[in-house]
Amino acid sequence: MNFDILVLGTSSATPVSNRFPSSQIVNIYGTPILVDCGEGTQMQLRRFHVSFGRLQHIFISHLHGDHYFGLFGLLSTYELFHRDTDLHIYAPEELKQILWSDWSPVKANELPYPLHFHALPRQGGVIMEHKNFTVQALPLQHRIDTWGFIFREKQREPNIIKSKIEELGLLIEEIISLKHGQTIEREDGTKIYPQDVTTPPPEPRSYAYISDTKYIPQLAEKLLGIDVLYHEATFDNAHLQKSQLTFHSTAAQAASIARAAHVKKLVIGHFSATITDMNKFFEEARAIFPNTVLGYDGLKISIPVKKANSEKSGNA
Amino acid sequence: MNFDILVLGTSSATPVSNRFPSSQIVNIYGTPILVDCGEGTQMQLRRFHVSFGRLQHIFISHLHGDHYFGLFGLLSTYELFHRDTDLHIYAPEELKQILWSDWSPVKANELPYPLHFHALPRQGGVIMEHKNFTVQALPLQHRIDTWGFIFREKQREPNIIKSKIEELGLLIEEIISLKHGQTIEREDGTKIYPQDVTTPPPEPRSYAYISDTKYIPQLAEKLLGIDVLYHEATFDNAHLQKSQLTFHSTAAQAASIARAAHVKKLVIGHFSATITDMNKFFEEARAIFPNTVLGYDGLKISIPVKKANSEKSGNA
Repeated sequence: MNFDILVLGTSSATPVSNRFPSSQIVNIYGTPILVDCGEGTQMQLRRFHVSFGRLQHIFISHLHGDHYFGLFGLLSTYELFHRDTDLHIYAPEELKQILWSDWSPVKANELPYPLHFHALPRQGGVIMEHKNFTVQALPLQHRIDTWGFIFREKQREPNIIKSKIEELGLLIEEIISLKHGQTIEREDGTKIYPQDVTTPPPEPRSYAYISDTKYIPQLAEKLLGIDVLYHEATFDNAHLQKSQLTFHSTAAQAASIARAAHVKKLVIGHFSATITDMNKFFEEARAIFPNTVLGYDGLKISIPVKKANSEKSGNA
Repeated sequence: MNFDILVLGTSSATPVSNRFPSSQIVNIYGTPILVDCGEGTQMQLRRFHVSFGRLQHIFISHLHGDHYFGLFGLLSTYELFHRDTDLHIYAPEELKQILWSDWSPVKANELPYPLHFHALPRQGGVIMEHKNFTVQALPLQHRIDTWGFIFREKQREPNIIKSKIEELGLLIEEIISLKHGQTIEREDGTKIYPQDVTTPPPEPRSYAYISDTKYIPQLAEKLLGIDVLYHEATFDNAHLQKSQLTFHSTAAQAASIARAAHVKKLVIGHFSATITDMNKFFEEARAIFPNTVLGYDGLKISIPVKKANSEKSGNA
C-alpha cells in the first residue's frame, strides 16, 4: 500500500552539476513507474539505489530532450542485461517514430524484450488501469504537445472488523458481500448490516506531475484535492516575461495552482540554471502556498495511508 | 603549450553511480577536444568546470551508446545557448545518418550553428591537422567499426638564444632562416651557423586514446614512444574469456601493450561494473607496467614540455 515519489532530476533544459534533467520514480503498491527520463536517468537510478530491473512502465510528458534523452541509455542497458520482460512506454506519438526508425540510436525492433508503445491521447484520459490505481494523462500547454500525469489510488473496500468474523461466524462469501455493501439475510431471518461489521476504507491518495507547462489557472479544477502536486517552476516572478515566452511557469504561479486546487503539498522543480539562489523560488512559492517543498535530486516523499473520512462512511 | 587530458567517464557499457560512460577532454595548445561523449557528458563537463562553449571538435570512437549517447544532450544544449560557431564531429559514417535522419532526436539540419561531419576513414590516418598538432585515427578491433585516436604535437622549431640576437644584431629574416636550419652568410663574408645561435626544440609530446578494442599485440608498433596511453581495461584476467567474447581487453593486456610500446605512462579505464574491487585492475596492470594509473572520473593528467633530446640536436 506504499505510495512514494522519488525525484531524480530537478533541472530544466540545461543540467547543472547537482541537478539532472527531469525524471522521477512513482512507486504505488510496489509498482515502480518512471515519469520522464532525462539524460542520466539510469545513473540517478543507481545513485539512489533503485533496482530498475523491475520497472515495466515509463511515462514521457513531452519530447524535449531534457525529458527523454535518457531513454536511449536505459533501453540499451536493459538489452545488455538480457531483459526479457515486457516494457511499456506511454509517450507522444512521435517517440514511436524515433525509436522504431531505421536510424534510431536504439533499434526498438531488435531489442531482446517486448517494447510496447502507447501514444498519449490528445484529449487526455486514463491511460493505465491497474488493480489498485489509475494513471490519467492531462494535456498541458507548452511549446510542443505535452501531458501531465495524475496517479490516483482506487477506492478500496471497507475493512471487515476482525472480531466480528468469529462473533458472527462470517463465511467468506458473506464477508465479500458485506465489503461490497450488501446486507446479509440468514436462513433464520437475522440480518447483518455492512455498517455494523465494517470500518470505512481509507480515502484514496493521489499524486500529480505537471511539467512542462505555462500557467493554466483552469488546471486547478482538474487537480482539486490532490495530495501531492509536483509542478514545474522554471523561473521566479522576476523572470515572468521569459517564463511566458518559453511557455513555462514561475514559482508563484505553481503555488497559485496548488492553493486554488487545495492540494495538501506542493513540490516545485524544473529550475532554470540561470537562477542560482534557490531562496527565490522557495520564498515566492511559500508566500502563496506555505506547504511548498523545494525539489532536489534524491527527494523522497511518501503519501501515508489516510484515515477514513467518517462523513463519507455508512457509519455516520 | 599545454597538453592535458581530463578523464570524464571511466565506466564501460553500464554506468555506476561514481563512474560515467566514456568521455574525455584533450586540451592541446588551448584547443579543447572532446573524445567520446557517453550519456551524461554535459553534466561531467559542468561538474569538472570545463567551459564547453569553446569546444569545436568532437571525436567519437564507435557507435556503442556508452560512447555517444551524450551527444544528443550536448548538441541540444548548444542550441539552447544560441551557439553560432562551427562544430566538427569526427565519427563513424553511420552517425551522420543518425543525426541527419528525419527522426533524429537532434535535427542536425535545424541547429542554429554549422555542424560539420567528418567520417572516419576505414584505414585510419591523420583526420585533423592543426598548426601545432595532428590527430590520427587508428582502426581497432571491436564488435563494430571502432577507431582509436593519437594526438601528436608537431615538431617545434629550435629556440633562438636571446643573447645572440643582440650580440650579432640578428634581423627577423635571419632568425627565421636560422630556426629553419639555414646558415646565414653576410655581405662581409661572416657566416652564422644555426647550431651556434639556437637550442634544440623540446621533443613533441603525444597521447593515445584506445577504447574499445580486443587485445591487439601489433598495436604496440603504432604506439611506440607515446607519452601517455589511455587503454581500455574492461576486465581483469580472471574474466579473460568474457573479455575475448566481447572484444574487450584485460588490465594485463593493456599493460602489455604499454610495455611493448615503451610508453611513458598508462592510464586504464572503461571498467566493467561487474568488478567492484579496483585493486584487481591496478595490481594486474602494475605487475606488467609499473607506471600505470587507474582512471577515474575527474582524473587530470598534464604532459609537461619535455627537455630537448640532445642526441638529436645539432649541438651534439
